[in-house]
Amino acid sequence: MHGLGNQYIFINCFDVKLEEKELSLLAVEVSDIYTGIGSDGLILMGPSDVADLQMRIFNKDGSEAKNCGNGLRCVAKYAYDYNLISKKVMTIETLGGIVQATVHPDDAGSVLLVTVDMGKPRFQAEQIPVTGVSQEGPIVGEKIEVDSENHEMTVVSMGNPHAIFFVDDIEDAPLMTLGPKVEKHERFPESVNVEFVQQVSGDELHFRVWERGSGVTQACGTGACAAVVASVLNGLSNKGEEVQVHLAGGDLYITWDERDHVWMKGPAETICEGTYYRKNQRK
Amino acid sequence: MHGLGNQYIFINCFDVKLEEKELSLLAVEVSDIYTGIGSDGLILMGPSDVADLQMRIFNKDGSEAKNCGNGLRCVAKYAYDYNLISKKVMTIETLGGIVQATVHPDDAGSVLLVTVDMGKPRFQAEQIPVTGVSQEGPIVGEKIEVDSENHEMTVVSMGNPHAIFFVDDIEDAPLMTLGPKVEKHERFPESVNVEFVQQVSGDELHFRVWERGSGVTQACGTGACAAVVASVLNGLSNKGEEVQVHLAGGDLYITWDERDHVWMKGPAETICEGTYYRKNQRK
Repeated sequence: MHGLGNQYIFINCFDVKLEEKELSLLAVEVSDIYTGIGSDGLILMGPSDVADLQMRIFNKDGSEAKNCGNGLRCVAKYAYDYNLISKKVMTIETLGGIVQATVHPDDAGSVLLVTVDMGKPRFQAEQIPVTGVSQEGPIVGEKIEVDSENHEMTVVSMGNPHAIFFVDDIEDAPLMTLGPKVEKHERFPESVNVEFVQQVSGDELHFRVWERGSGVTQACGTGACAAVVASVLNGLSNKGEEVQVHLAGGDLYITWDERDHVWMKGPAETICEGTYYRKNQRK
Repeated sequence: MHGLGNQYIFINCFDVKLEEKELSLLAVEVSDIYTGIGSDGLILMGPSDVADLQMRIFNKDGSEAKNCGNGLRCVAKYAYDYNLISKKVMTIETLGGIVQATVHPDDAGSVLLVTVDMGKPRFQAEQIPVTGVSQEGPIVGEKIEVDSENHEMTVVSMGNPHAIFFVDDIEDAPLMTLGPKVEKHERFPESVNVEFVQQVSGDELHFRVWERGSGVTQACGTGACAAVVASVLNGLSNKGEEVQVHLAGGDLYITWDERDHVWMKGPAETICEGTYYRKNQRK
């Protein structure tokens, strides 16, 4: 399945029991584009004691991830499509906490869109973390020097750090030049995701991302959320109103609500399904 | 399925009938690593009037290919595994002609290795094509100037052109420097695949390839065949004897026989199988 081109292999662990020590290796194996299926990683869905179901995410390097907005939407669609959960609003246990997801089936019962609660944005410099900030409260219009030139950024944490730069034309955004330099800038001790935003109107913006550790990607769910929060903080969008975000991989609909939670609505698609043969069991 | 990391999506067209006008688009769609399964292309297997079965290969850019050694081995395995063909020696119709393939099931009936007839090598300068050649017959120890420096190459066509350079240590082969320069050298009007070979003994060699149009790849079946032909032409291996070729993606066993045909034996693996949902039919 994929959400905006972010692709994972999903295994229903309600039926099958996998060995804990095998999971990391299995993620590496299935994700290999040459001898595996090829993907961004492996997602396991199984029973939970504290939510409707549990999801575990293993990246293609075998490491376990806390959360993934694009993967979450797919999990909610899978759970509803395959009747693991028969409710439209469900809770999903992740390593990063319990998340609420809502599926939106169309008249034919097809789940093409899913909304997930991405939690509250955080603004404290030490939470992000970012150093050398003079202002109190949300970090808006903050100057950052790159190659002796000053740029203005808004800095937001959605569990991971984001630096947002507003531009006049998304096609001219300095993604490949400013992206890697801000990512590794000394003021971000844990590096940062770098986003460029062209505001079209209060409820629409264009978005491009340079992801920490990955470079340019098709879509970044937390980045799109951070962009809309930044847009509200800069007085370009309104709190409580849905904003359409155009990413390279497709569109997301983001709302920063009055209770301070950020909601992300977006697509989830099933590409194929079947049987995978472990490398050491192929014949 | 994959052969040495060269991965294709295979469709059994004995049962299902696809529209001719859809094939190119389908290959692009399934090969997409973001929204498709991700692969090097699409291979269709169906009935043939002139052979045991027909295979058609569509590259991930949608173009139709004449032949593919790695794909051929997979087709033979599939045909035998799924009882499309019940013989171990079968003929396969390709756009490049009819090819013979032999499956080698082990005692448990698993087909792990397949041998395919890769045809006869060709040595005429105009067949390859390569210009500025003074010698008659096979082009061996031919000087080529790159950046004012002379290198010695052996040039062979296996239906596609190959320039082979012998090196003392495969780890130090100038793959990234000489590769692209020889590929686009003015003496190769249709470009050329560039191979580096370290001869270990008469029946063993190391191999690395810079593929025309693709750059460094894990494996190139025709290149491995050309390397063994070049090895025989240079008196380093014997005609009629099997040579083990170590590629980045795994091993091939190549024999240039007395009837002048080159036989390639190598692995074929099934990764997964199931149902694919067309992009416009997902729900």
